[in-house]
Amino acid sequence: MPLPRDYSGQTCALARSMEVIGERWTLLIVRDAFYGVRRFGEFAAHLRLPRAVLADRLTTLIDAGVLERLPDTGRREVYGLTPKGIALWPAVRALTTWGDAFHGVAGGPRRVFRHATDDAPIGDDGRCTDCGRPVEVGDILVTPGPGLAPAAEDDDPVTRALARPHRLLRPLLDPARTPRPKRGSHP
Amino acid sequence: MPLPRDYSGQTCALARSMEVIGERWTLLIVRDAFYGVRRFGEFAAHLRLPRAVLADRLTTLIDAGVLERLPDTGRREVYGLTPKGIALWPAVRALTTWGDAFHGVAGGPRRVFRHATDDAPIGDDGRCTDCGRPVEVGDILVTPGPGLAPAAEDDDPVTRALARPHRLLRPLLDPARTPRPKRGSHP
Repeated sequence: MPLPRDYSGQTCALARSMEVIGERWTLLIVRDAFYGVRRFGEFAAHLRLPRAVLADRLTTLIDAGVLERLPDTGRREVYGLTPKGIALWPAVRALTTWGDAFHGVAGGPRRVFRHATDDAPIGDDGRCTDCGRPVEVGDILVTPGPGLAPAAEDDDPVTRALARPHRLLRPLLDPARTPRPKRGSHP
Repeated sequence: MPLPRDYSGQTCALARSMEVIGERWTLLIVRDAFYGVRRFGEFAAHLRLPRAVLADRLTTLIDAGVLERLPDTGRREVYGLTPKGIALWPAVRALTTWGDAFHGVAGGPRRVFRHATDDAPIGDDGRCTDCGRPVEVGDILVTPGPGLAPAAEDDDPVTRALARPHRLLRPLLDPARTPRPKRGSHP
């Protein structure tokens, strides 16, 4: 099927955005990267995604300049968001907010984003509901929300780690084995 | 392929959002609905989307409660955004902003969103860059931006109509033949 003018990638910013992140799994991988998931096996276990599918989607995101491979302290590489990927945060937040409002669980959101400085929730406009300032991605904590299911026996390491507040973009697991982020050391 | 826990629609708001609007064409149809596109033929011509594909995606959006069928003044029906659909605006804006920043044309964005009250651009946080207030969707104008290509001979009616400022949610074409939106009459 020939691409129409407004989906040719020549003219429509939204169309081009959806070509990168509209795929069924892609934005979930990006969200996990914001949560600090960095290793192939961590993404695979958390998303329960077949390794071949995950490998394909990671390649797509690297080719699109959203993710980059970073050296691990071990033999392996890890995946991290580029500035272009970090710029997707408002879209990830907006889609998550919409999903919580219309497709969420009765108890409320599973995750609540808070301003690390004063622990107040982030508003829909990306500003802190307490101090009113716009909050940088690196100053946002992802914290358990009222809709979060109780921990299960078979929870993967990412799900278990996200049962505690965690600063976005910082490595979620085994911080000692991953490079320190520019913003500072893991709390 | 069995759906993983975080994509089963039971737990993850973002996953459930992407199940509704992540499909290749769906968010483009929603964007056009914000621009005031209402008729099947208008969507088909603007997106150059095969009618069978468009019909399938419209059904998906109606089943999801994002669009609804509304009586036309003629024999046909038109499609309009529900409150759940209108709540997608921050996500549409965020994805468009990201696309303009990283996949846009050299000249700048094709469309600039402005506050109808004072004609100032809307900021990335959804607030008016002049008065600083959050701007309701119905008070936003979609206006031609510096990256908008010159009108072409074969432009469809939607593309031609969007060469002029237009208030979101108001019928874009043939207002006399479509129901008046609650906010008031077409300018």
